[in-house]
Amino acid sequence: MKIQDLLREERAAVETSLDRLLPDESAWPSRLHAAMRYAVFGGGKRIRPILARLAHRAAGGDADDITAAACGIELIHTYSLIHDDLPALDDDVLRRGRSTVHVAFDEATAILTGDALLTLGLEVLATCPEPEAWAARRARAVALVAAAAGSRGMVGGQVEDLAATGHLDEDGGAAASRLELIHRHKTGDLLRASVQLGAVLAGAAPETEALFAEFGARLGMAFQVADDILDATATAEELGKSPGKDEAAGKLTFVTLYGLDRARAILHDLESRLESLASQLEAPGGPLGALAHFICQRRS
Amino acid sequence: MKIQDLLREERAAVETSLDRLLPDESAWPSRLHAAMRYAVFGGGKRIRPILARLAHRAAGGDADDITAAACGIELIHTYSLIHDDLPALDDDVLRRGRSTVHVAFDEATAILTGDALLTLGLEVLATCPEPEAWAARRARAVALVAAAAGSRGMVGGQVEDLAATGHLDEDGGAAASRLELIHRHKTGDLLRASVQLGAVLAGAAPETEALFAEFGARLGMAFQVADDILDATATAEELGKSPGKDEAAGKLTFVTLYGLDRARAILHDLESRLESLASQLEAPGGPLGALAHFICQRRS
Repeated sequence: MKIQDLLREERAAVETSLDRLLPDESAWPSRLHAAMRYAVFGGGKRIRPILARLAHRAAGGDADDITAAACGIELIHTYSLIHDDLPALDDDVLRRGRSTVHVAFDEATAILTGDALLTLGLEVLATCPEPEAWAARRARAVALVAAAAGSRGMVGGQVEDLAATGHLDEDGGAAASRLELIHRHKTGDLLRASVQLGAVLAGAAPETEALFAEFGARLGMAFQVADDILDATATAEELGKSPGKDEAAGKLTFVTLYGLDRARAILHDLESRLESLASQLEAPGGPLGALAHFICQRRS
Repeated sequence: MKIQDLLREERAAVETSLDRLLPDESAWPSRLHAAMRYAVFGGGKRIRPILARLAHRAAGGDADDITAAACGIELIHTYSLIHDDLPALDDDVLRRGRSTVHVAFDEATAILTGDALLTLGLEVLATCPEPEAWAARRARAVALVAAAAGSRGMVGGQVEDLAATGHLDEDGGAAASRLELIHRHKTGDLLRASVQLGAVLAGAAPETEALFAEFGARLGMAFQVADDILDATATAEELGKSPGKDEAAGKLTFVTLYGLDRARAILHDLESRLESLASQLEAPGGPLGALAHFICQRRS
């Protein structure tokens, strides 16, 4: 199956599960539940739950067992976008072509919607899959994802990003190490945890789990480097948004910091390492390797 | 031991554990960790972790086994205060006589500090107590507390409270049912979950767990009714803050809604039921009954 077709099928499974996990808009408190659904069903790629499902399958599990748990990570990802968009942080009014939550609803609702999605995401990880035999793996799943999402992970990366753009005072540091901190934590930790979650829920041995975690961490970094390269090189038509925005905004990226050639070389090295890791985690031609290739070569 | 002395001892155990659980200010990202510590060490009564410890002991456990887990709830309580104080919500500049987090730091840091404390609180519940034999109880603990803290619990109560004070549009409803919704969820659910947590971590049978949960729910309600009565009747000296603020602000409270006499009758009924529940949960003269009495009779 072509990777695009696989991703389409995977995405459908994730959407169905997300719809089941989110409280109905008619249930109290309905405005909050409406905002949670507005935020979650905003056209995301669902890359995190898909990664968890693919990793679970590669580690010998049945991906359908863990779809709900995988969606827990998507809820946490969604909360992080809502809070990042707030006026006090990035102050974004649009996301994926739609009004951000604080614009479509109001700021108080946006803050509480993020809080509720984070809480629900970890609750889902603590309760899915339901059978008692999974209880110990569920506890590990919560611990793994919460650590990746917390102050030493995603939230820490966001603090560093705000500091880099002058929004916040924070420990100084050279641009290169700051860029690495931002990407490793702000987006990388949750992507890494997504892949690792699939392995943990399959009961993978620690050495195997570590390989999955490395695959996830490098995939997250590759995703970011590819994004930076695309912003610098793609046409507006390919990208669906204005290219060159990063440089214009003086933003710290792999391209603005290292130049285009070195950024491409970094991405090439990451792709080689991802291929090598994938070959240890799945049969040749498997979906993890295909997804890594797809991400490193993407044009939009 | 007098209840005040017991509470002092309990509080000391909780403070020590909180200090161990919170990342050091010197660890990256240090400004965020400083804000987390500023918020947590602001002089709270620690009633939630103390309730969890007392309930655990009453259910046959060793309270010292679960101090860290109990502190997970205190971190979640602290996050809720930080976000409630934000300009977009209650816009409070002072809490317990000190600047709120968004005043002492800034708004972005306050939002992220709340996020990080919520995440850490649930991580602590997923990881403490550490031994593998506790894993299934840890997963239940996360599920229990997250459900109490989420959209159908504490966050939902906050939405309702904002709607009542005209900050937010939300489903209408008569004042009495709205007041009940606010108290049951905004403060009640987490207090109830604190008591229930102690029982769950002791492996209590479902019927026993339900009694602990009822005790916690009614204690939470009693706490709120007593607070409303105090605001209407205590002198500024007794209260340490200006009394009568609720009525002046047109706030929906048990006293403004029902009048002082009926509020006192409600509190009296709650105290009787709490005594009866305590007699089923512990030996006569035990700390749960003493704490209930203390809360219902408090003068400040």
